[in-house]
Amino acid sequence: MSVLRHRLERGRYFDSVVLMQLQRGLAAIDGVHEAGVVMATPANQELLVAGGLLASPLAGARGDDLLIAVSASNTRIAETALARFEALVAARPTGAGAAYRPRSLRAGLARLPAARWVLVSVPGRYAAEVARQVLGAGRNVFLYSDNVSLEDEVELKRTAAARGLLVLGPDCGTSIVAGAGLGFANRVRSGPVGLVGASGTGLQAIASRLHALGSGISQAIGTGGRDLSAEVGGATALRALGLLGVDAGTRVVVVVSKPPHPRVAADLLARTHALGKPVVVQFQGWAPPGRRVANLHFAADLEDAARLAAGLAAAPEAAGAAPRRPPARGLLRGLFSGGTLASEALSRLEAVVPAMASNLAGHRAQKLAAAQSTGAHAVLDLGADELTVGRPHPMLDPELVVEHLARAARDPGVGSILLDVVLGDGAHPDPAAVLAPAVERALAGAARDLEIAVALVGTDEDPQDLAEQKARLEAAGARVYTELGAAVDRILERVGAAADPAAAAADPAAAALEAPLVAVNVGLELFHKSLVDQGVESVHVDWRPPAGGNERLAAILARLDGAARAAAVEGGG
Amino acid sequence: MSVLRHRLERGRYFDSVVLMQLQRGLAAIDGVHEAGVVMATPANQELLVAGGLLASPLAGARGDDLLIAVSASNTRIAETALARFEALVAARPTGAGAAYRPRSLRAGLARLPAARWVLVSVPGRYAAEVARQVLGAGRNVFLYSDNVSLEDEVELKRTAAARGLLVLGPDCGTSIVAGAGLGFANRVRSGPVGLVGASGTGLQAIASRLHALGSGISQAIGTGGRDLSAEVGGATALRALGLLGVDAGTRVVVVVSKPPHPRVAADLLARTHALGKPVVVQFQGWAPPGRRVANLHFAADLEDAARLAAGLAAAPEAAGAAPRRPPARGLLRGLFSGGTLASEALSRLEAVVPAMASNLAGHRAQKLAAAQSTGAHAVLDLGADELTVGRPHPMLDPELVVEHLARAARDPGVGSILLDVVLGDGAHPDPAAVLAPAVERALAGAARDLEIAVALVGTDEDPQDLAEQKARLEAAGARVYTELGAAVDRILERVGAAADPAAAAADPAAAALEAPLVAVNVGLELFHKSLVDQGVESVHVDWRPPAGGNERLAAILARLDGAARAAAVEGGG
Repeated sequence: MSVLRHRLERGRYFDSVVLMQLQRGLAAIDGVHEAGVVMATPANQELLVAGGLLASPLAGARGDDLLIAVSASNTRIAETALARFEALVAARPTGAGAAYRPRSLRAGLARLPAARWVLVSVPGRYAAEVARQVLGAGRNVFLYSDNVSLEDEVELKRTAAARGLLVLGPDCGTSIVAGAGLGFANRVRSGPVGLVGASGTGLQAIASRLHALGSGISQAIGTGGRDLSAEVGGATALRALGLLGVDAGTRVVVVVSKPPHPRVAADLLARTHALGKPVVVQFQGWAPPGRRVANLHFAADLEDAARLAAGLAAAPEAAGAAPRRPPARGLLRGLFSGGTLASEALSRLEAVVPAMASNLAGHRAQKLAAAQSTGAHAVLDLGADELTVGRPHPMLDPELVVEHLARAARDPGVGSILLDVVLGDGAHPDPAAVLAPAVERALAGAARDLEIAVALVGTDEDPQDLAEQKARLEAAGARVYTELGAAVDRILERVGAAADPAAAAADPAAAALEAPLVAVNVGLELFHKSLVDQGVESVHVDWRPPAGGNERLAAILARLDGAARAAAVEGGG
Repeated sequence: MSVLRHRLERGRYFDSVVLMQLQRGLAAIDGVHEAGVVMATPANQELLVAGGLLASPLAGARGDDLLIAVSASNTRIAETALARFEALVAARPTGAGAAYRPRSLRAGLARLPAARWVLVSVPGRYAAEVARQVLGAGRNVFLYSDNVSLEDEVELKRTAAARGLLVLGPDCGTSIVAGAGLGFANRVRSGPVGLVGASGTGLQAIASRLHALGSGISQAIGTGGRDLSAEVGGATALRALGLLGVDAGTRVVVVVSKPPHPRVAADLLARTHALGKPVVVQFQGWAPPGRRVANLHFAADLEDAARLAAGLAAAPEAAGAAPRRPPARGLLRGLFSGGTLASEALSRLEAVVPAMASNLAGHRAQKLAAAQSTGAHAVLDLGADELTVGRPHPMLDPELVVEHLARAARDPGVGSILLDVVLGDGAHPDPAAVLAPAVERALAGAARDLEIAVALVGTDEDPQDLAEQKARLEAAGARVYTELGAAVDRILERVGAAADPAAAAADPAAAALEAPLVAVNVGLELFHKSLVDQGVESVHVDWRPPAGGNERLAAILARLDGAARAAAVEGGG
């Protein structure tokens, strides 16, 4: 048999972690069966009733009232437990600087004007409004809170971009900024690897493994789990990449995310390609175009990402300046006889080149009838059924390749041509005899910067002789590679996006990444304590719900506040 | 101005490659503008008309008639060209053994009874019937022809399996079997790597690179591009894997394919897992679950696949016997506080374990409400919104993990439990203090073979101290890993499919892979020539369309033949 007792305290507020600690303290008292310490919202009261800790919801209790409930073996124990509640409150660890606590963000920033960052971990329904105030005060936001609407997220990130500020989150579990861990964060060596992540434990796992491998972290920028959605469009990730791209302390960048929206992934990869620095990409549940495409290294898991990054950071060439790419030199025509080779080449190319076209199905590229000319970079599978009606496969007979090669060379918009040549028994007995003259004619006839790259598949024992074929194609002016990836990389130097470091260098948010970190904390006291433990100067704001937790009133106040701000902006414009 | 001339020859047949060679020979004659040498099907006649080589289709011409057409600068040249046609026929290279040529498959096999293989490259509409005859004669088929219907492919592969024979194809461009290249094939060193591929140039590229890296090929088994479709279900690939799994000459297996159907990919990976040998998997456009899962190594491109395989083949441990796994010991419960860790663990597990359940979205696993019990292996994200209503995130407070751990330990069906523990600032100050006793209780209470593995994320500088947490969890009886992949691999030793070498060893098709290769060729003469060039004993059948190319009659004959065979089977049963 259990005895139930409860107490309601008007207008008293603790954050959810503190509530849990207090509840656990009560439950640990001898003879107490169970305890509940919650804010007295209708939902929480129902949970207590369902759990047998409360006979029925309390009439007149409000969301900003504290509700303490216990079930115990007898009345004396239950009442003693309630009486010991204040002792538990007094005994909990509160961290340094607990003596005086500002009650508002404004007061907190006034107390620590050097703070460039504000950590926001208030309940989700209040979080967007607090974040708006932070941006309004010209500070960057680490937004731990979840349950922030997508509309609010888009608006906050748009505002931040316009003001040269960063919003990390909502639902951002971790970051390491200017040497300090925000939210959940492992303590890791400072070092050459910069992380960007839409995945909390993903960032933590990679950072921890990099540390274990002897490497270290320059910055680890959490973006929030929805940043790479179609709606948010990678707003924070793209800016973080730009910042790490020009950050002198970052030699290698790692991007980690749950499956991104395909369009956003494409934007992100094009941006990382333009960085020039080595970038390790780990998108969970996402098909990589290859192990490495130009400066992009595709990892298959978190550990793999850490190993690749540690290896790249330790390599001497990583220390050099990022290579500069000139703007794209004309369109690409990829002319393939091997379907699988065509498909891999297209995957590699479309990973970093936004506008591709192809007659291959199953790719992001715009679908192209083979005969059609296009203003986009194009990869054609010349062995496709629609092209071999009434003629043999181009591996048997390269005439179709020769025709397309001549056509591409005549097109003044085309700057690069990529071919495959497959040797071996069964294939044409001497492809170079047909293709070398065609390459020579194409280059001679084009009064412009035209390059022809060949991916040559074969062995030194093949009847056609790999070395001999290579030499004759090279003599005709082609660049010949025995690895498809190397041929595609050469093409990407000509058609990939040009690096534009000036744009990223101009992002004023770079100041947000400069040490030392100074921060104001609004929400979970725990995060303030963790900053203090790390030796970071921090002020904790004794935040409580506006309008005494009355959500209808709070919404009205927020709307009035919004109208006032809008009026101020109009007045200022 | 062009003059047109043509000649029709009743009942004369050449294969498409020979037609192309003859056509090119005519076109090379001085003064000839263009030439066409085709079988006089309506479609081919239309192509000639469209190309300006024929004024109008010829009344009375049939599909098994040869049509020669030229356009030339004057009448004399056009007529000379037609007259020189026979000289071109006589001059073409025909390979050894051209003197006598059997006219039927039966006659070909009678001439070379040792032939275990028949290469079929007749036009697609005839190919299924020829392949059926080959299987009926107890021989294996390399089926180069395309345009074979999916129904025919399914039926041919079903028949082959029932008779212990292999069908490679249809649309199989390449294989290297018993040391000889079939179709298009590069000449490569004999060696320890066995390939299975639903991708022609993919197989060629990997084989060529393995050769360049100093390794070599035991067998390269092409399956045809549709083998990994839902309909065909990997019929040939699964058997090829079984054969390479028990083949003493194969130390490492590589599987390469265009994107397989997800269910077929799952079957294939479960089978490769059961092989025990190192297997390199390269599925284009397919998201890998990790860089390595147990004995499966996931490559990101063709070159990467070759490099991984060469490295594995050279590693000393690859030479040892495949490890034997006992049958699965109970169900798995994965209990995660980190969403990304949960997702990676699930991806790794479901790659090789067919029946998984989870509350995580975006996976193949059956969707599970967290509270629900299940007869499947399950991975739960305990940080999911639906589980943290009214309570803090399990990274802050491991109580939810403790509850689920106790529940799993009480379930007599559960044999393995996998946890993550994430350290760092912000996380619980001492997870081992809560979890170690829970692990101890779980193991002590379970009167069965229960194992608990922990993936521990953190660093030696974290406030909780990685080494200290690890030691205490290990003292409680857990196996602790700092790499998630290693923890999952340990679990897979308990829940992965058991190896069943007996089943594969019993496949009589193993005989098909034994050297030397002896073959009959039906279709493209080119493939016979290539076998002869490789020193392979081969007979070329001078095949021509049945019923004189009359397709309606051929269909009737095939149906009658099918009925006769069905009657024979009924009579035999």
